[in-house]
Amino acid sequence: MSVIFLSELMSEISQRGRNFLQRNREIPRDPAELCEALVSRRGEISCFVLSEAILESWERMDRAGQVEFLMMLAERFGPDRQSVLDAMAAVSEDGDADTFYRLHQASEPRSQELIRRLNMGRCGTRRLVQMREILLGAIAEYPALRTLDKDFFHLFGSWFNRGFLELRPINWSTSASILEKFIEYEAVHEINGWDDLRRRIEPGDRRLFAFFHPQMGDEPLIFVEVALTGEVPDNIGSLLATDRREISPYEATTAVFYSISNCQEGLKGISFGNLLIKQVVDQLASELPNLRNFLTLSPVPGFRAWLDKLRNDESQTLLTPQDLESLAVIDQADWPEDADGRRPLTTMLQGLASYYFLEARDSRNRVVDPVARFHLGNGARLENIHSFADLSDKGRRSSYGIMVNYRYETSEIESNHEAYAERGTVVTSPSVRSHLKKFLARTKTAQAS
Amino acid sequence: MSVIFLSELMSEISQRGRNFLQRNREIPRDPAELCEALVSRRGEISCFVLSEAILESWERMDRAGQVEFLMMLAERFGPDRQSVLDAMAAVSEDGDADTFYRLHQASEPRSQELIRRLNMGRCGTRRLVQMREILLGAIAEYPALRTLDKDFFHLFGSWFNRGFLELRPINWSTSASILEKFIEYEAVHEINGWDDLRRRIEPGDRRLFAFFHPQMGDEPLIFVEVALTGEVPDNIGSLLATDRREISPYEATTAVFYSISNCQEGLKGISFGNLLIKQVVDQLASELPNLRNFLTLSPVPGFRAWLDKLRNDESQTLLTPQDLESLAVIDQADWPEDADGRRPLTTMLQGLASYYFLEARDSRNRVVDPVARFHLGNGARLENIHSFADLSDKGRRSSYGIMVNYRYETSEIESNHEAYAERGTVVTSPSVRSHLKKFLARTKTAQAS
Amino acid sequence: MSVIFLSELMSEISQRGRNFLQRNREIPRDPAELCEALVSRRGEISCFVLSEAILESWERMDRAGQVEFLMMLAERFGPDRQSVLDAMAAVSEDGDADTFYRLHQASEPRSQELIRRLNMGRCGTRRLVQMREILLGAIAEYPALRTLDKDFFHLFGSWFNRGFLELRPINWSTSASILEKFIEYEAVHEINGWDDLRRRIEPGDRRLFAFFHPQMGDEPLIFVEVALTGEVPDNIGSLLATDRREISPYEATTAVFYSISNCQEGLKGISFGNLLIKQVVDQLASELPNLRNFLTLSPVPGFRAWLDKLRNDESQTLLTPQDLESLAVIDQADWPEDADGRRPLTTMLQGLASYYFLEARDSRNRVVDPVARFHLGNGARLENIHSFADLSDKGRRSSYGIMVNYRYETSEIESNHEAYAERGTVVTSPSVRSHLKKFLARTKTAQAS
Amino acid sequence: MSVIFLSELMSEISQRGRNFLQRNREIPRDPAELCEALVSRRGEISCFVLSEAILESWERMDRAGQVEFLMMLAERFGPDRQSVLDAMAAVSEDGDADTFYRLHQASEPRSQELIRRLNMGRCGTRRLVQMREILLGAIAEYPALRTLDKDFFHLFGSWFNRGFLELRPINWSTSASILEKFIEYEAVHEINGWDDLRRRIEPGDRRLFAFFHPQMGDEPLIFVEVALTGEVPDNIGSLLATDRREISPYEATTAVFYSISNCQEGLKGISFGNLLIKQVVDQLASELPNLRNFLTLSPVPGFRAWLDKLRNDESQTLLTPQDLESLAVIDQADWPEDADGRRPLTTMLQGLASYYFLEARDSRNRVVDPVARFHLGNGARLENIHSFADLSDKGRRSSYGIMVNYRYETSEIESNHEAYAERGTVVTSPSVRSHLKKFLARTKTAQAS
Repeated sequence: MSVIFLSELMSEISQRGRNFLQRNREIPRDPAELCEALVSRRGEISCFVLSEAILESWERMDRAGQVEFLMMLAERFGPDRQSVLDAMAAVSEDGDADTFYRLHQASEPRSQELIRRLNMGRCGTRRLVQMREILLGAIAEYPALRTLDKDFFHLFGSWFNRGFLELRPINWSTSASILEKFIEYEAVHEINGWDDLRRRIEPGDRRLFAFFHPQMGDEPLIFVEVALTGEVPDNIGSLLATDRREISPYEATTAVFYSISNCQEGLKGISFGNLLIKQVVDQLASELPNLRNFLTLSPVPGFRAWLDKLRNDESQTLLTPQDLESLAVIDQADWPEDADGRRPLTTMLQGLASYYFLEARDSRNRVVDPVARFHLGNGARLENIHSFADLSDKGRRSSYGIMVNYRYETSEIESNHEAYAERGTVVTSPSVRSHLKKFLARTKTAQAS
Repeated sequence: MSVIFLSELMSEISQRGRNFLQRNREIPRDPAELCEALVSRRGEISCFVLSEAILESWERMDRAGQVEFLMMLAERFGPDRQSVLDAMAAVSEDGDADTFYRLHQASEPRSQELIRRLNMGRCGTRRLVQMREILLGAIAEYPALRTLDKDFFHLFGSWFNRGFLELRPINWSTSASILEKFIEYEAVHEINGWDDLRRRIEPGDRRLFAFFHPQMGDEPLIFVEVALTGEVPDNIGSLLATDRREISPYEATTAVFYSISNCQEGLKGISFGNLLIKQVVDQLASELPNLRNFLTLSPVPGFRAWLDKLRNDESQTLLTPQDLESLAVIDQADWPEDADGRRPLTTMLQGLASYYFLEARDSRNRVVDPVARFHLGNGARLENIHSFADLSDKGRRSSYGIMVNYRYETSEIESNHEAYAERGTVVTSPSVRSHLKKFLARTKTAQAS
Repeated sequence: MSVIFLSELMSEISQRGRNFLQRNREIPRDPAELCEALVSRRGEISCFVLSEAILESWERMDRAGQVEFLMMLAERFGPDRQSVLDAMAAVSEDGDADTFYRLHQASEPRSQELIRRLNMGRCGTRRLVQMREILLGAIAEYPALRTLDKDFFHLFGSWFNRGFLELRPINWSTSASILEKFIEYEAVHEINGWDDLRRRIEPGDRRLFAFFHPQMGDEPLIFVEVALTGEVPDNIGSLLATDRREISPYEATTAVFYSISNCQEGLKGISFGNLLIKQVVDQLASELPNLRNFLTLSPVPGFRAWLDKLRNDESQTLLTPQDLESLAVIDQADWPEDADGRRPLTTMLQGLASYYFLEARDSRNRVVDPVARFHLGNGARLENIHSFADLSDKGRRSSYGIMVNYRYETSEIESNHEAYAERGTVVTSPSVRSHLKKFLARTKTAQAS
Repeated sequence: MSVIFLSELMSEISQRGRNFLQRNREIPRDPAELCEALVSRRGEISCFVLSEAILESWERMDRAGQVEFLMMLAERFGPDRQSVLDAMAAVSEDGDADTFYRLHQASEPRSQELIRRLNMGRCGTRRLVQMREILLGAIAEYPALRTLDKDFFHLFGSWFNRGFLELRPINWSTSASILEKFIEYEAVHEINGWDDLRRRIEPGDRRLFAFFHPQMGDEPLIFVEVALTGEVPDNIGSLLATDRREISPYEATTAVFYSISNCQEGLKGISFGNLLIKQVVDQLASELPNLRNFLTLSPVPGFRAWLDKLRNDESQTLLTPQDLESLAVIDQADWPEDADGRRPLTTMLQGLASYYFLEARDSRNRVVDPVARFHLGNGARLENIHSFADLSDKGRRSSYGIMVNYRYETSEIESNHEAYAERGTVVTSPSVRSHLKKFLARTKTAQAS
């Protein structure tokens, strides 16, 4: 059944409408006036035309102009203050539901309606996602944008409603125009061109799944790369080695989610990832009944910063002088190559990492590691900690080479998720708890010995 | 590219989550408590489970129970009044944007968040559309539901965003499960079973287009039936006659939109119709370059009520006693069959109808006829008025047999639309204006004669 | 990926070509001359045009004219006899491979090339299938058509190559234009309109699968209707009852193939059915792992004719006078309604049927029943014989109410098929063999008693 | 509507069948015996299994073994000679149609039935196309294969029937697994990797169309690359320049078919190309009504060989000593760079080329150039001859840099095609005829001057 998309129609109507308005000299030049016109017009055609005019002029601005435009929105398109005060007076006087509702409406920033109407323009949603990307980049410098961002966040939350997301398996039969996005967006383990991409998606023991959204066309929102293996992997190098041995997916016992990348900066905070993993787990489980383990091989991006801070904190009591000395080797360019040389460091790093996950908390009393927060929030449990698992520059720079597995156990997802979401509990395997136990006991052992 | 839909996944997660919560005895029984739990839980799994529990229990209620449930929402799920008062105090004290925004958030009824979360349940949107259908049916009796409806209206406006609508041409190759909906939903000229449906969609000179929405599955939102003809039709009977002569679509000069039906009561007020017609016009124009006229053959559902009221209004001055006498024939069961007998009535009804469209206004100063408001608002112009055009019981009952053509002239749509939307102007053809002129002049003529 | 079909193109080229040839007055009128022109022209355009001209004129003929046309082909479009004699002389002289090949080519009837070229016309294949339908209808009266049919048979065998067949599951989401074919073509248990069709395909425990072919468009070639049940059914009435209880497909243990219909008379002898059943078995087995039994509920169309002949054959020795007497009740209009009354007849009919399948053979030494030959040839085994299983007029008329189950046991299909195809062995269940044993022993029993 | 493909089913059946036959020790080892078994078995399962066994063992052979296998087929699988002699005797005796038909059947080489049965194996057609590729490569050395090739040719002609071909527009949205074939198969102007491919298909003024066949999966049969331009191009370099200016397809007046590549060596002689071009012309004409010119920019692969032969032929009279002298410059490594320097050579080469197309004929009295035969046979006319049009090594090596345009004029295709197909006439533009006229007149001019 052929489906006709609106975009073409809208561009035609928009053009005819523009001609009409131009004949009638009704299109202002100044962006602020354009925006005023857009929120006040009743005619739908004018809305089309004005949205398009605003978005086009925005796209022609340089970054400074774009930030200035956003600041203008933040300043001029708050709620009509007099209406709010009137509505407040009415509420004070009479408490019925309708009066409250009118206060709610009166206090809505006009920028919210403005964004809704901009969304009617051609490819409106996609262009507004780009606008928010600029906004987020400028928010640190211009805190007044923070309130404006709440409008975007509120509306995106509604438009990117989970019901619209489509999970698509991606493979070598996928269109080239979509495939090239994955080369561009892979954020965890870079994809170097078409041949490398092919190694990630063509073999039977490699999968890639992505979420798409009807308003975003061929732009993926988020994707996950999966390796099907015979055992739980303890390092990324051998997983991605070009000379690895391919196995039949029907032999595989383990699905490893080794890379999860968000694609749209402008959708920051609008979360889909949890749904993605649950859905891919279910999808793979039904296709390949032999799979018993679903787990990630994940980076630990906050570990090095946390550890370095600890090492430099003179008042800390967790690390003994002896610990600090034995840790010194991780600052050297050359790490030991053989298992024997690595052993002491392995134990120390596993111990510290178990502490990092289970005991350390950030200023908002949360688990420190953002990737951990993501997976624990999804109902995974922390399964293994691997030292010397990612020896790339990036891996050493962010986590001193540590990687971890989070396990998604279908029968536990709900209880793990609720435990973490409602009570902040980190569910872990015995092996991780034993690392912590040994680490906390080491001083005594050291003293005893 | 195969797409995996979330519904199945959600139903599995929901089942597992329910088992989990039930083991933990956390699911309340009472609908109001279920709703309280739903708006307050943080865990996403609980949200799935609770939404599903609420929607299921709602669907098991009888209508009285459902209305009671809605009233409970209206009463208990307004905004938290203390928070509103606090936020108001903060606004009075300090006028920054963020304070205003917090007032906006505080004054949002909790029912709005509740509906958002119900939407996460399996087929949430479809079920909420059904819930609003019940709400709208009860609103006259229970005015307190009016504010609750604003939540539905606001959220549906966002979810049924035009960017999600898909226009699909419907024909005899369409799936039976979709086709049966059109038999069910046709509201203007009833479709009697499969053979009748086939006559409306299979011939090359008949078309049907519908809007669909990804969250509503196979349920159409609105559809339009089109006849391709060699001339502008002046009555519905010959258009639908089973023995009419089919013509090649390439010979047709005229596309007649002879039936437009909304399918979802629960989406009342969320308008798609204007977009539908514009899009179908563009679609047909590009497929069949010979088409020169795009117009409707429309009912005039408010005409008889208006005219009857006028005839019974002793204080009115528009109709002369002579008029009233000559109109008496329309109350008789048998109308004249021949053109000669019909002529006086034809002229009188066309005159009255032209007055009805161009001069009469309702209590809100709007054009009286709802179908007229729809088409004029879309940028059509009123083209022709036909007497004796719909001789069915329904036609006589609602409009004394009158039908009209609205013309969609691509080059005029924008200006007509803006004229009507911004200034209330009704654009008409010279022929309609001449009916009015003759009608207003008739007394003098009558007096003169 | 949109695919552009040739049919439109061909119709345009054909029209332009026709204009060209007509300007040049090269199109003969007489069908025989048209055919001569078609086999002799080299230009491809002329071939298009002439094919179309022949097929059109054929379709305008009445049946008598069509048969006359076919007879003309049979008489005038054999091989060129002189060329054959020359090629024979060459073979007699020199025996190399190429000389033999030239004899093969020389002896090909010109009608074969003619049919190949007719196939180039618009919808050529579909129209040739209709042509063969007429031919097969006339062959008994005009035996000279038998050789011509060999051309059709040979070419159809190649064009309807199994690699082109597509198995499509048919359900209530299938297009109406396809669904109506099943109403038309069901040959075993009639479908009465859309509501009845819906009962056959919409419930979760009912399936319909069909084979399609790219050259035949929406025309199915053959289809099978499947009921998913909890037990092996012993009569058709309760299987099709409108008030039957629907079960979940996941509970079903048994897939019953209760109706298999060929749709195209003109494809007689070109067999797809074996592939259809094997494929549907595999398809269902993978979708519903609970299914353990795959079997048919099949008519026995040759049974009554065989039995009546036997009963009237004075020289036969199989039936005793006592048998004949007890069989007399099947000629009566009213059959016993209760199990007790039916018992003697049940046993007798099962015994006779077991003999009919296992012992009786036709003049070509084949199993007598055509449906049996089909299923045995596919690798099924004869599983059960049911008396009083089809009490419809048709059922009594063709098989005295008997139906049978053939079982498709995946692990046995190959050996059963080979046993039957290579050695003519009928594989049966112990129950059927025991019917036969008892039947053959009955005389002794009778004598003994 | 989901379609289930047979390949999987066939591979399962094949495996089960193999197990069955192996248990029964019925699979011979020797390829010749395998083939004997395949043509003589009746059971379909055995046919599956034996086909697969033969194709697998063939694919494991080295090229020498494969040729030996083909020779074995050619020698052992001719017709049964005794049957042929018997059938000949019957024909000599009695001349009825059926006797002749039996002779036709008897004289069919057994290899033909063998190939038909091999086609039943998994991916049979694709594998047989590869088999013929080897055969064609060996035919020069082993002329006995020539008769065997007739079987392939005859059967492929039937299987690759035009009705099965699908024209697909290829673009940057096409699947990567299909796109990579075009990089591989482009035979005229090499595509260097993904970026170069993208330049050929992504811009709005570039198109690529290909024919596919259901039995060949993602393997294209033939494809054409099209450039949409504002003028008729006279050289390939500027058409493919990476810095060329892209134009809107709606501005284009001219569609240039600048590369046509056959993809399957094994389908040599089975022609689709004519249909491809006609269809693409119609497709583009209906999409882009502004297009007025449809023409190729084609190589002239036979020109240099013909001209070199002529130059070296001491008995020729066409070229004067003066001609030969002025032609000497084309043997030099450096050709003149400026128009003035090129002028004499331009005129001379255009004259010679016009003679090459219009007057020269090969030993079978055909137009010498194979590309010319292809386009003239399709109904194109020879439009322009361009010197210095392809300065690549390949261009100079095969045609001294000459390229030509063939024009496809919709209204003339049929008459041009028939003129060439039936009478051998080469239709040309006045400009080409004037080149010839000047060339033939030059001696007189030279003498006169």
